[in-house]
Amino acid sequence: MSTTDPHDYAHAVVAAPRPTLDTSPASYLLGLADDALVYAQRLGEWISRAPQIEEDMALGNIGLDLLGQARGLYPRVGELDGTGRSEDDYAYFRDEREFRNVHLVEQERGDFGDEMARLLWFSSYQRQLYAELVTSRDETLAGVAAKALKEVDYHRDHATQWVLRLGDGTAESHERMQAALARVAAYVPELFDDDATSVAAAEAGIGVLPSSLEETVVGYVRGVVEQATLEVPEVGRWRSRDGRKGVHSRAMGYLLAELQHLARSHPGATW
Amino acid sequence: MSTTDPHDYAHAVVAAPRPTLDTSPASYLLGLADDALVYAQRLGEWISRAPQIEEDMALGNIGLDLLGQARGLYPRVGELDGTGRSEDDYAYFRDEREFRNVHLVEQERGDFGDEMARLLWFSSYQRQLYAELVTSRDETLAGVAAKALKEVDYHRDHATQWVLRLGDGTAESHERMQAALARVAAYVPELFDDDATSVAAAEAGIGVLPSSLEETVVGYVRGVVEQATLEVPEVGRWRSRDGRKGVHSRAMGYLLAELQHLARSHPGATW
Repeated sequence: MSTTDPHDYAHAVVAAPRPTLDTSPASYLLGLADDALVYAQRLGEWISRAPQIEEDMALGNIGLDLLGQARGLYPRVGELDGTGRSEDDYAYFRDEREFRNVHLVEQERGDFGDEMARLLWFSSYQRQLYAELVTSRDETLAGVAAKALKEVDYHRDHATQWVLRLGDGTAESHERMQAALARVAAYVPELFDDDATSVAAAEAGIGVLPSSLEETVVGYVRGVVEQATLEVPEVGRWRSRDGRKGVHSRAMGYLLAELQHLARSHPGATW
Repeated sequence: MSTTDPHDYAHAVVAAPRPTLDTSPASYLLGLADDALVYAQRLGEWISRAPQIEEDMALGNIGLDLLGQARGLYPRVGELDGTGRSEDDYAYFRDEREFRNVHLVEQERGDFGDEMARLLWFSSYQRQLYAELVTSRDETLAGVAAKALKEVDYHRDHATQWVLRLGDGTAESHERMQAALARVAAYVPELFDDDATSVAAAEAGIGVLPSSLEETVVGYVRGVVEQATLEVPEVGRWRSRDGRKGVHSRAMGYLLAELQHLARSHPGATW
């Protein structure tokens, strides 16, 4: 039984220092952790909904890998921002505007092809990101990156195999995979936006400039998509932005309601 | 891309031999596999709904362990019943009356205490069951049991720790854990019902007589519950029965709709 007084929650929310959307290393790590947490939630939704039991397990495991990455990062954020908050504080007791994840990961679950398009982009991005972060001056971040690198290698390979199968499959699967790539396209450029936080983190040798990842990531995805006899869609007039500044889409509110409901209903304890 | 013609599905349903609710070894293994599959679905629902990130991961992992057990058993069922059906055939293309799982695992997700009460009973049951099945004359079943034994040991320990924390926690958590045990109680005796299939399987040296597990399982659970300063509730006038005969509660229909929708919408392929 947790010994925390349930009423501590009110105290924590009112009085504890909150992580702010500043340009500190803490905020940089928070963005990476929030990406992982939020996408883990979305992938978890596939359990009992995938087209094969094997795929149920694969997406469940990928989601759990991402949760593990988030859990590795949040306590370090709590050290860096001086609040000493726990992983659960960050996950359950922040409001939407305090989440720094990109819009790609918060979007509602679409069909299976949408998920594979999203996973291909996100895992390719994470693959390149973590490959660079293994030399971060923040040792915790470097450690998380080194462990995660093997995981996201598998995630990327998984998404790659599916995009190839579906793109180079039946006429219907080809068409649907192409449509999925088109629906996801507007959320991709945000991954490579250089906000002030990541610029500062890169200058400090802690983080990576997102724009520096773009060429490699796009190159990889383009290779897969073309091998799958598909095309990388152009991004239209609208594209997502500013997730890292705490600006989110409508989908985020529903996701957080689901994620935070139980912990907020029975704060400070399991009940 | 699967090379199966989507129209094969109609063929399979109409023309292929179906597993029947007989007393064959296939039916016995099917009951164990269905318990694992169905409970995996229910546990998967906790992803993004648990009170802690750590618990999210734990329940997700337990669900994936159970899915793995089901995947180990279904292909063997397909050999034994002569249909050669795959794990996906069993999971996605059977109707409710063909599922042999007990009612305990199909019940709707309740609160976190309900889940811990259910997990304590079910994992204690599985722990004892698999401990005996490692010497099954069916080598596949013996192999699945040997692997699963380590997993369910952990599941049981996990549930045990929570029941102790909640029962011996605050006044509220104590009261809620006691209420959870009461809600689950009527679904427990069914685990130990000797139906004709399990009697036949036990006689053939393939399976275990469910009633032979009762004393040990109840003894373990009673020990935990009493250490948690709680009581094992009496079972009231109504108790569940006949899940192994394909008779299910209303919750099962909704669960199968969720589980089977995607595969049935796009049969024979991922799409």
